[in-house]
Amino acid sequence: MEKFWTYFPLIQQQLDETRLLIIEKVNSRNKEIKQALVELTNSGGKLLRPAFFFIFTQMGNADQQDRQQLIKIAASLEILHMATLIHDDIIDDSPLRRGTQTIQSRYGKDIAVYTGDLLFTEFFDLLADTMKNSKYLQVNAHSMKRLLLGELDQMHTRYNQNITITDYLRSVNGKTAELFSLSCLEGAHFGHASKEIEQLARRIGRHIGIAFQVYDDILDYTATTETLQKPTIEDIAQGVYTLPLIFTLQEHPALLAPYLNKKEQLTAEEAAEVASIVQQLDGVEKAKEFADLMTEKARQDIAKLPKSTSRKQLQKLTELLLVRKY
Amino acid sequence: MEKFWTYFPLIQQQLDETRLLIIEKVNSRNKEIKQALVELTNSGGKLLRPAFFFIFTQMGNADQQDRQQLIKIAASLEILHMATLIHDDIIDDSPLRRGTQTIQSRYGKDIAVYTGDLLFTEFFDLLADTMKNSKYLQVNAHSMKRLLLGELDQMHTRYNQNITITDYLRSVNGKTAELFSLSCLEGAHFGHASKEIEQLARRIGRHIGIAFQVYDDILDYTATTETLQKPTIEDIAQGVYTLPLIFTLQEHPALLAPYLNKKEQLTAEEAAEVASIVQQLDGVEKAKEFADLMTEKARQDIAKLPKSTSRKQLQKLTELLLVRKY
Repeated sequence: MEKFWTYFPLIQQQLDETRLLIIEKVNSRNKEIKQALVELTNSGGKLLRPAFFFIFTQMGNADQQDRQQLIKIAASLEILHMATLIHDDIIDDSPLRRGTQTIQSRYGKDIAVYTGDLLFTEFFDLLADTMKNSKYLQVNAHSMKRLLLGELDQMHTRYNQNITITDYLRSVNGKTAELFSLSCLEGAHFGHASKEIEQLARRIGRHIGIAFQVYDDILDYTATTETLQKPTIEDIAQGVYTLPLIFTLQEHPALLAPYLNKKEQLTAEEAAEVASIVQQLDGVEKAKEFADLMTEKARQDIAKLPKSTSRKQLQKLTELLLVRKY
Repeated sequence: MEKFWTYFPLIQQQLDETRLLIIEKVNSRNKEIKQALVELTNSGGKLLRPAFFFIFTQMGNADQQDRQQLIKIAASLEILHMATLIHDDIIDDSPLRRGTQTIQSRYGKDIAVYTGDLLFTEFFDLLADTMKNSKYLQVNAHSMKRLLLGELDQMHTRYNQNITITDYLRSVNGKTAELFSLSCLEGAHFGHASKEIEQLARRIGRHIGIAFQVYDDILDYTATTETLQKPTIEDIAQGVYTLPLIFTLQEHPALLAPYLNKKEQLTAEEAAEVASIVQQLDGVEKAKEFADLMTEKARQDIAKLPKSTSRKQLQKLTELLLVRKY
């Protein structure tokens, strides 16, 4: 994954420093937790949110920038992301994350709860350090809240065959798009870019975030463990009905009901059959079209940004991220 | 519990407002969580930390005080406390808290994890709102960290028969005394009291917090479910070895080893036998002496505060809280 960023020489150095700062911050006096967090930090996390953040800082005014402050804010974004990942894995009982064992499956839910909590503290500490006099302190508090509410919304609609696209989007907006949007917005803001760029940044992040999540959800229907490094079709089995399934459910509810009525009792084979039905009945295709539409919206806004090397990098990153192979 | 505060007319009104603000803050769009949190707020929580906070605000300068700010800070202290309680109950698998079912036993660990997280967000939001330009933002971040590390320390020494008094005190200092100390300190600080009072407040809170926790741990060896509203002897069974047991372990390790070696397999009857041994061999008595010493330290510092009605209230509250019936 380190290799990924060699395509983005402008931000590679900052990302390396961000990773070092994160490792320094997670250096808890509890050895188990320290080890788990260092592994999570090093296990190929792409630092996507810091990357978007730094690309937008470069559209600002370099003379007014405080490099250390920017590294810390970038770290705060990734740390908040890590904290929610760890707590999500408790809820999902996920065995794998980024190709390595999750903290809860390796050290137990007790360690996982506190590890996530400690990361919230580090997040908070970094913000107290970098934006003491800024309204962004509250912007962050509200983002964190929307993020958690997005997770809760998802939990609340589990195993619900009447889940609507609106339900799904509300959850995605919170649990994924919010943090992408915040990352871009904070990059523009703390990079001292113009208000116009701030506005575009926020919207670009939002649309990229939604597209990213929809494509990720599609992978659950198309990928194998090898390519994705996580168990496939786990969403269906856990009652998390994402966009491909929702599209299919809306047109063929009776076809899927016999499977989905089994809820927790659905076997892996049956889940695979559901995935196959969703693929055949164009659920995946429609979800892809929706994600493409979001990507296109982001592209259009990116085109409105001032022409620059960093805009080019943003275009490239967006393509690499969202135009995957299925 | 409401009745408790009728003895403290000076702060009763503020505590009522604090409780209302907490209920307003926990008003999540997720109905289950909202209900759980409102119940937790109303189920007899004494709002002890806000109470110490308000008593110390009254030793400050009323003309400089912002009443709304003080209510919000008081709420932040209780909300942080509630968040850690909810996550602790996940770890402990506790069925009861304040005499009612815990959130995790009633709604499951999934809801409990996010409910605690949401409260951390509200805590953070209240601080962003009230101490934007203050170094207390970071003071709070560090307190939250010490609190969690205290919990982790306790988890780390579970079922460890070599646990020392230092281990125990380190954990108590973090998980309990830190927040009492912060409550008193913030009361003095945001009440615009003198630096001398701030220093005393911090120390008084620390000693009261330690004494409070030790007395609470003693109850595990002496109380019944009816008086305490929580299952007794649960600490021993969960491998949490507190001061009464540690004192006994240091002098009679061979006597207790046959029981404690059973770890999770220890039955309720055997745990009761351990409790009985600890009582007979003066473990409880020695722990009580230690708690009395901490209470005495707090009393001495309280005596150094300027003579006032609020000092009298503080003395009274300390007596009521720490001089329980055993």
